[in-house]
Amino acid sequence: MLALTILGNNSAIPAFGRNPTAQILQTQDEAYLIDCGEGTQLQLSRYKVKRSKINHIFISHMHGDHYFGLIGLISSMGLTGRTADLHLHAPEQLQQILQLQLDAANNTLPFRLHFYRLGEEGIIYNGKKMTVECFKVSHRIDCWGFLFREKKNPRSIVPELVKSYEIPSSFYDALQQGYDYTNKKGTIIPNDELTIAANPAKSYAYCADTIYDESIAKKVHLVDLLYHEATYLKDLQQRAAERFHSTTVQAGAIAIKAGVKKLLIGHFSSKYEELDAFLTETAAVFPNTELALEGVCYKI
Amino acid sequence: MLALTILGNNSAIPAFGRNPTAQILQTQDEAYLIDCGEGTQLQLSRYKVKRSKINHIFISHMHGDHYFGLIGLISSMGLTGRTADLHLHAPEQLQQILQLQLDAANNTLPFRLHFYRLGEEGIIYNGKKMTVECFKVSHRIDCWGFLFREKKNPRSIVPELVKSYEIPSSFYDALQQGYDYTNKKGTIIPNDELTIAANPAKSYAYCADTIYDESIAKKVHLVDLLYHEATYLKDLQQRAAERFHSTTVQAGAIAIKAGVKKLLIGHFSSKYEELDAFLTETAAVFPNTELALEGVCYKI
Repeated sequence: MLALTILGNNSAIPAFGRNPTAQILQTQDEAYLIDCGEGTQLQLSRYKVKRSKINHIFISHMHGDHYFGLIGLISSMGLTGRTADLHLHAPEQLQQILQLQLDAANNTLPFRLHFYRLGEEGIIYNGKKMTVECFKVSHRIDCWGFLFREKKNPRSIVPELVKSYEIPSSFYDALQQGYDYTNKKGTIIPNDELTIAANPAKSYAYCADTIYDESIAKKVHLVDLLYHEATYLKDLQQRAAERFHSTTVQAGAIAIKAGVKKLLIGHFSSKYEELDAFLTETAAVFPNTELALEGVCYKI
Repeated sequence: MLALTILGNNSAIPAFGRNPTAQILQTQDEAYLIDCGEGTQLQLSRYKVKRSKINHIFISHMHGDHYFGLIGLISSMGLTGRTADLHLHAPEQLQQILQLQLDAANNTLPFRLHFYRLGEEGIIYNGKKMTVECFKVSHRIDCWGFLFREKKNPRSIVPELVKSYEIPSSFYDALQQGYDYTNKKGTIIPNDELTIAANPAKSYAYCADTIYDESIAKKVHLVDLLYHEATYLKDLQQRAAERFHSTTVQAGAIAIKAGVKKLLIGHFSSKYEELDAFLTETAAVFPNTELALEGVCYKI
């Protein structure tokens, strides 16, 4: 199971108590931080997400509302004595900026910071239980979306049954992968008599900041949860386009084309105090929509 | 009159709802921002200080808890269409960092940002109603304090009296400076019969982060309000020294040596949830002490 917590859902300027973009995607063991606007370290502590659980950070682009909180978070990790490696996937300009900031403070981090420059679409992280792909979206500057896919979980063996069928432990791996067992007499024991299906592998796509771009639909095809920005309501489609952002109905249209299960919209413009209309407009296009609300944890 | 509002009073890592260092010193016309930790733009809006009133920013040193909020504030000023010049006094490393951040966002500010590198002790700003001096304090990296002095205010002329004495308007400036008037008959009319004294010029010294350093007392001699850091309680004097910070009683000792009217202490370590002992310990040395509390406005 994946769980996504929204730490910031506002566009460029903080407003109405809403913070700039940051999200945390959690599995049972790991926490993946996606973008890191100013104040993210405070939001993490407000919503009880431990800094120490974060080993991978993904920064979509170099607009400040998506990364100004990163150096503060990294510095705090250092000050509190982190020793575990930290993996940062980001546009290349960020590396020099971070290094200058660390140098100016005469600061040597007590952990290793691995920097991976975003440059080509494809898999950028291949972990034991998760892969992460990056893909291009269309913004005023280079901007990347991220697609998180859980790996297929192994089936669970029922101990009493494998014992009673006298199945050798050397065959357990195959059982977990779904193979049937054939005993010495040639009798086939079907896998689903011996194992229980695992939770299905889930997927989450984060589309960062983007103008309406139909090519994105293919890239996030059939994901369980799609986050698409909806900076403006539908009446401001022209302004959205001028600023390389999307509207409510455009986010809904991408969700339909992509055939996703559920849509989450965010990156709301600071001009709006109330968000109800965002939901109404988007859900009229794609009913299974929710607003990305700070502090809310969306189970995937 | 000067009024100082505390926007952040905590040391390096935000804790217990306390923010990293930032202060705003206001006159009737101007607001001077002193340091700018992460989240300062949010604190400004929380305490109803208009960004547009800030024309001068002073950054003491390159530890992040004193400047990580600056790029966010400057970006927001740009996004909201500021056109007035902004004057930034800071260590030279900050210029390149800001420039890289603006370049990476493909961002041209709609206002002029004047950067003044801190390099020598002395007057760094000489305005119509205020001078600002910088002075060195003793920290792990180069660190500067700032001394704000209101210029002597002109005396107010009493219109009925200057008319009845038939004093020419060409002499009004001299009257405001305190000169007596001698009429054609050689009669001296004393200034204090013609004018009313202005409010006395006030002074405020901000000592940033520093180890206990007696030489600072001379630099802030007789100011109306002294801000001195007190990162630790007195029992942690050794830890304070190792980290180039001060304790409560050390802040009090500087206030006594400097003969200041009032002392404000802040930059409290994240290890302390309660602050009462900071006041008790410091006031035992220098009675006219207050804690720097966020959102509180200290009249000078």
